[in-house]
Amino acid sequence: MKIFRSISEIQEYRKSLKGSIGFVPTMGALHNGHLSLIRKSIDNNDFTIVSIFINPTQFLPGEDLDKYPKREAADIKICELAKVDAIFMPIKEDMYSAIEPKILAPSQKAYILEGFKRPGHFDGVLQIVLKLFNIINPTRAYFGKKDAQQLYLIKDMVQSLFLHVELIPCEIVRENDGLALSSRNIYLNKEERTKALNISKALKMASKAMMKGEFQSIAIKNIIRKTMQGLYIEYIGIVDRDFNKIDKIELNNSIILLAAKVGNTRLIDNLWI
Amino acid sequence: MKIFRSISEIQEYRKSLKGSIGFVPTMGALHNGHLSLIRKSIDNNDFTIVSIFINPTQFLPGEDLDKYPKREAADIKICELAKVDAIFMPIKEDMYSAIEPKILAPSQKAYILEGFKRPGHFDGVLQIVLKLFNIINPTRAYFGKKDAQQLYLIKDMVQSLFLHVELIPCEIVRENDGLALSSRNIYLNKEERTKALNISKALKMASKAMMKGEFQSIAIKNIIRKTMQGLYIEYIGIVDRDFNKIDKIELNNSIILLAAKVGNTRLIDNLWI
Repeated sequence: MKIFRSISEIQEYRKSLKGSIGFVPTMGALHNGHLSLIRKSIDNNDFTIVSIFINPTQFLPGEDLDKYPKREAADIKICELAKVDAIFMPIKEDMYSAIEPKILAPSQKAYILEGFKRPGHFDGVLQIVLKLFNIINPTRAYFGKKDAQQLYLIKDMVQSLFLHVELIPCEIVRENDGLALSSRNIYLNKEERTKALNISKALKMASKAMMKGEFQSIAIKNIIRKTMQGLYIEYIGIVDRDFNKIDKIELNNSIILLAAKVGNTRLIDNLWI
Repeated sequence: MKIFRSISEIQEYRKSLKGSIGFVPTMGALHNGHLSLIRKSIDNNDFTIVSIFINPTQFLPGEDLDKYPKREAADIKICELAKVDAIFMPIKEDMYSAIEPKILAPSQKAYILEGFKRPGHFDGVLQIVLKLFNIINPTRAYFGKKDAQQLYLIKDMVQSLFLHVELIPCEIVRENDGLALSSRNIYLNKEERTKALNISKALKMASKAMMKGEFQSIAIKNIIRKTMQGLYIEYIGIVDRDFNKIDKIELNNSIILLAAKVGNTRLIDNLWI
């Protein structure tokens, strides 16, 4: 497995590859969620490149940029065992310069829900994803459905900027007890970890209610709110796949999105219906 | 010569081409300035694609978007005679959608000089150039040095977004009497046309003063101002090649930029030193 820190060197390497390129952009601290993306990429492409870069522009002032988990040695090992072809671990100074254009995510969709709580977050996400796509020039790129709004906004960017990459959405990976995997789960102490289960449980309860025929957003939100009692709920969103708020859930076209703080840790989860 | 109005069709065509692709993005109303870009592209590439698109996002409210000259038949003929391989003439509705990310040109460099007079203009320029680059995927792209600030900002975007295209700056083309070619020159009546000559004349006077050893920006600006008496001067800028304002002109690293209104017509010109 090759490890590149230099942009020009990975570009050189990329040029040498003949065949399809799967790309898994990450911020490191890899877990089984990332691994499922990596495995899918390896299955479906001739080469797989994983990037590890804690992108400063997607963190807001006061967020956890400085304490975001860094596990370089473990990440490299995980990629190696998975048979990744190359890791790209650039440094901040090479990825950004003092004078450069900024990407503004579409305000109608980037300043609601996650973007309402983290204004500007998605601008930074699109900025780095665009740069990474341009450097790596992948055939396919793999993103988790856990970051549903991110996935929507990246899809919108790919379409409207005419980027040549196929996006592959990947299912949320969960612990046995239901907790959605996240690099931030390591922040949780034992008590918080137990409390956090109510997030995925709320989605299960919503699911049950829908199986019984309840599709009104208000009713579903109430069920979720009840299940999440004791957590600090940041938002409960029910939208169609284009992130328009909907009053009634439609099969195959809806997403329920949750964000909550457990102690100091912000967690998100969602359910695609 | 092929003419494409559909994005997917030109993408299909592009994929079929083996060899280097020269790209000349224009807003139509082609003149000898454009033709010099086209010829350079044809000389240096296996294929040349010209785009003609009056990009609405680079016009400010109240600017001449609606009356910007349209000469489709003549433009097609010019390209055909020049042996262009393909013209891309997309429609606005295909190039832009209601929900999409915006590109913000770097404020330090995009809101001075031309950008101070036309705030937001360069955001629109970068937006469309990025889209066109992504659609056409050219080996080389040709831009006139007349739009010096635009050229600088596009170069900055190519570097900081890691785009795979070589930019080829092309010399300003002038009428015999010195007037820099511009699609907007057709707006000028006879009297205005005569007045407008003082713009290029001012640059000539600056040049003469420099040959005599005068390199102080203030002195050069005074000479220019004097020569342009009677015109409505929008700005006289003296910058280095990175668009930092400079007090003293340096050989091989400076640009003098002028903008003036002649009647209702806004004209720009510049001199690379």
